[in-house]
Amino acid sequence: MELTVYLAGQIHDDWREQVKNIAKEKNLPIQFVGPQENHSLSDDIGERVIGEQPSNLYKDDAASAINNLRTEVLLKKSDVVIALFGEKYKQWNTAMDAATALALNKPTILIRPESLIHPLKELSNKANVTVETIDQAIEVLEYIYT
Amino acid sequence: MELTVYLAGQIHDDWREQVKNIAKEKNLPIQFVGPQENHSLSDDIGERVIGEQPSNLYKDDAASAINNLRTEVLLKKSDVVIALFGEKYKQWNTAMDAATALALNKPTILIRPESLIHPLKELSNKANVTVETIDQAIEVLEYIYT
Amino acid sequence: MELTVYLAGQIHDDWREQVKNIAKEKNLPIQFVGPQENHSLSDDIGERVIGEQPSNLYKDDAASAINNLRTEVLLKKSDVVIALFGEKYKQWNTAMDAATALALNKPTILIRPESLIHPLKELSNKANVTVETIDQAIEVLEYIYT
Amino acid sequence: MELTVYLAGQIHDDWREQVKNIAKEKNLPIQFVGPQENHSLSDDIGERVIGEQPSNLYKDDAASAINNLRTEVLLKKSDVVIALFGEKYKQWNTAMDAATALALNKPTILIRPESLIHPLKELSNKANVTVETIDQAIEVLEYIYT
Amino acid sequence: MELTVYLAGQIHDDWREQVKNIAKEKNLPIQFVGPQENHSLSDDIGERVIGEQPSNLYKDDAASAINNLRTEVLLKKSDVVIALFGEKYKQWNTAMDAATALALNKPTILIRPESLIHPLKELSNKANVTVETIDQAIEVLEYIYT
Amino acid sequence: MELTVYLAGQIHDDWREQVKNIAKEKNLPIQFVGPQENHSLSDDIGERVIGEQPSNLYKDDAASAINNLRTEVLLKKSDVVIALFGEKYKQWNTAMDAATALALNKPTILIRPESLIHPLKELSNKANVTVETIDQAIEVLEYIYT
Amino acid sequence: MELTVYLAGQIHDDWREQVKNIAKEKNLPIQFVGPQENHSLSDDIGERVIGEQPSNLYKDDAASAINNLRTEVLLKKSDVVIALFGEKYKQWNTAMDAATALALNKPTILIRPESLIHPLKELSNKANVTVETIDQAIEVLEYIYT
Amino acid sequence: MELTVYLAGQIHDDWREQVKNIAKEKNLPIQFVGPQENHSLSDDIGERVIGEQPSNLYKDDAASAINNLRTEVLLKKSDVVIALFGEKYKQWNTAMDAATALALNKPTILIRPESLIHPLKELSNKANVTVETIDQAIEVLEYIYT
Repeated sequence: MELTVYLAGQIHDDWREQVKNIAKEKNLPIQFVGPQENHSLSDDIGERVIGEQPSNLYKDDAASAINNLRTEVLLKKSDVVIALFGEKYKQWNTAMDAATALALNKPTILIRPESLIHPLKELSNKANVTVETIDQAIEVLEYIYT
Repeated sequence: MELTVYLAGQIHDDWREQVKNIAKEKNLPIQFVGPQENHSLSDDIGERVIGEQPSNLYKDDAASAINNLRTEVLLKKSDVVIALFGEKYKQWNTAMDAATALALNKPTILIRPESLIHPLKELSNKANVTVETIDQAIEVLEYIYT
Repeated sequence: MELTVYLAGQIHDDWREQVKNIAKEKNLPIQFVGPQENHSLSDDIGERVIGEQPSNLYKDDAASAINNLRTEVLLKKSDVVIALFGEKYKQWNTAMDAATALALNKPTILIRPESLIHPLKELSNKANVTVETIDQAIEVLEYIYT
Repeated sequence: MELTVYLAGQIHDDWREQVKNIAKEKNLPIQFVGPQENHSLSDDIGERVIGEQPSNLYKDDAASAINNLRTEVLLKKSDVVIALFGEKYKQWNTAMDAATALALNKPTILIRPESLIHPLKELSNKANVTVETIDQAIEVLEYIYT
Repeated sequence: MELTVYLAGQIHDDWREQVKNIAKEKNLPIQFVGPQENHSLSDDIGERVIGEQPSNLYKDDAASAINNLRTEVLLKKSDVVIALFGEKYKQWNTAMDAATALALNKPTILIRPESLIHPLKELSNKANVTVETIDQAIEVLEYIYT
Repeated sequence: MELTVYLAGQIHDDWREQVKNIAKEKNLPIQFVGPQENHSLSDDIGERVIGEQPSNLYKDDAASAINNLRTEVLLKKSDVVIALFGEKYKQWNTAMDAATALALNKPTILIRPESLIHPLKELSNKANVTVETIDQAIEVLEYIYT
Repeated sequence: MELTVYLAGQIHDDWREQVKNIAKEKNLPIQFVGPQENHSLSDDIGERVIGEQPSNLYKDDAASAINNLRTEVLLKKSDVVIALFGEKYKQWNTAMDAATALALNKPTILIRPESLIHPLKELSNKANVTVETIDQAIEVLEYIYT
Repeated sequence: MELTVYLAGQIHDDWREQVKNIAKEKNLPIQFVGPQENHSLSDDIGERVIGEQPSNLYKDDAASAINNLRTEVLLKKSDVVIALFGEKYKQWNTAMDAATALALNKPTILIRPESLIHPLKELSNKANVTVETIDQAIEVLEYIYT
């Protein structure tokens, strides 16, 4: 039984590669999907497609329209969602993706460091499972197959 | 036609009073609901009800269970949601409430300062309307009645 | 049993007044709602609320965000939808409102002149009832109470 | 990950071939579906199946019943919808398909020329992404795979 | 707590009056709704509103469009459905209303004589409760208040 | 694109074989499913599985529970439903299956002879397409692939 | 803002009176609903309405059909559900009501003694809030109004 | 047509092996899924993943979060659910899984011994089919293919 897992979170480092590698080592039949990880492409895609915009406000909205469409398509195809939070970045997009997944009844695993317990308490309570590391998140996925 | 509007956002100041006053001046038939605004009560409600918890992690989760139940009940009764973001605080709970509202097809108005355009771009693109001030948000509500 | 009926259609004349008057004469316990009928307010509401926009494209989108929010709120409260088409105007907004209502399982009555049979054939086939005049549409509403 | 994309729009020219060719050149794993493109078959299918009808009204409705069934089946199988508008034709069927897709939460890309900004403003605001050319629409689809 | 109950069934006699009288005697706070009971009006409503039709086929379809719209509106407002079957008449409309109610998760009480056990077995198994008389059906409704 | 089509209707003759043969001749990639066609097995399955029942009422209900489960599973897997009506038999089970399919938004084709226009008018108006013969129904399916 | 709260649980003692009294003392605008509390009426209602049944199996099923219909109607009208578990009785009906409420997205408060932590762990994890006493459950309800 | 069947029930013996063996003998194209059957792993998984917990309450909740996520994922993939009850164990988790399946409109077969007729009467009435043995349950599944 193959599962598709959406990896929500910041796109400033390659944490998703970690996830995929560990899952591969464990031979888990899981396909991972996620947002555009090339950060400048993610920011520029709007203007790349429809042309230069009057200001950053419109530039950001044009890019977000396309990024959100991509997320919607992939999230719909997903069986489980992993949402990773770290101490850097606002990550409101991550919170939005996690909350949307939960509202759509998609099981969601939250990964967050101990230092973020308090600001993430409500989302954590709603999420199916909350862990602190990528390894733990994959263990939860692996458990589906045990 | 009375409407119920959920005011999502931080509970560190009384911005909701502003909203209610402006709406009152305009004689809008709107009932406003929102989260628990007494910040320490909001944090302590878990332990108050079920007793002292082993650590802050469990204390926060116990409180969040009750706060989330309250939000669910009130959000369900709401016709429109206003989500306010400011430069202080993590506000992941606000992002969660806004995204949940949108996923539940509840029209949502985002209020955010110009300085937060970039980190809120995806949520802003999904929200029905994005404005910068409380006054503008109420104007949008008022427009429903014009 | 009071019903709320959404009147979708162009806002260039006061056909909605006709609807309300006939319904009133028949003493039907119906509340009618609809889009903003002041055409220039409808077009300008975006800039009025959030300020001047770089071009008509952005001006129109800002206004539409607010008009669409208004429509969503009122459509949600509606039990039946009447969508009126005439020979003037593109009326893609009307087609959108009618189709949305049908997709949301809200009974919809289409009013269209004989000259528009062919271009409206698909929407007419989907609509619950298709008539040619406002009088006929109200007769259908009246029949709910007979 | 293969996707199915429904191409909504007029059936008076072969714009869909353009779409398929560009997607093919880019090696996108996308299956395109759409309405019956043989215009006279589309208009005549009702009478062809159930026999001659009393007038064009009934002829059109019989054909639409069958065309709408076809659209429903294919739209349900689709992950994304592209809706193309041009300056010719009423295109109320296209508006209906686009709005239905959006109401069913299917990501929708609107293609419309600059000249139609104003009459399509509401639908454009609701659509996930709005572009002006087929090339841009395919770039958005391609972005899902980047 | 007032409830609205839809009375589905043939419109050839006044069995609904029986239902209302018994409920009234028991002082049940129930509002009863149902289809158009004037049989010729029910059959003629299509032609009455949109004019004479080419044949009975079109006459019946025009009437059904309007009758179905009425049923949809009232069924949506209902909390419970009672579907009465008797030995006369085809009653496919009744079966349709009962099945639709069940598919929409509206509790449904089936009333049918012993002689119709076999042909109604599948619908009876799906219905919440099956009884043989109107009195029994009202007892079930009454039980909600005990 | 393979489709699954549920064939609802009486199980007293092998009309479904006709359907499958015509579809096969036309090389349509369609999988047909339907109810148990062995009429005595259909009636007896309840007692066969759980043992003899006190009377026909309980025997029929036990069988219907199992037949309904089978229908639910297969209907859920279906993309389109064909419901055939004839002049014999009560066919309330067929009406239930057709109405359930429509309530679940599954495109439904009704096949009924001219003599049943009147008693089937409401169901026919709700169905996507109404035809008189099996050949016509398959033409409608075939049209999805043209 | 009045709320309706469904009280799921055994009907062998009058714990619901406790709930209502405490809520009344706190002046909470809450309407409480629940199952039939007269235990023998609850068990006998089937035979009372449709007559004596062949055995307890059929007697129980006849009663359950009516009790389940009552629960469905009242649960649908409810905004919140309280499910009380105690050490006596199987309480599978209570578990069913609680799980159904959660699946229908109705906020649910679980009341269970410490001794039942282990057997109720999965249901408790799914429930919005878990407490040990009726007083605590009402405090959670009261918190919605604070 | 392959089906996926979720086997809900206690994990204290290997009854699921029986189910799989009988289905295999009958060559049924069914994939069976279910909860974690290693009882101590099921109880310990929480602490195994996120570390030792302050008490059994938290240990159980941590494990349930992960077990519930597993169940949600597998239940979602399932077409039919079998829920087995026996005289041992509280089985509130089983009742929760069965009720959740029914609320999600997944056909459910209940297996319970005669001695549990009374305490399972409500769940049994809601379930699609109730049988007493595993053999009978498989016969019902087999019937889908006959």
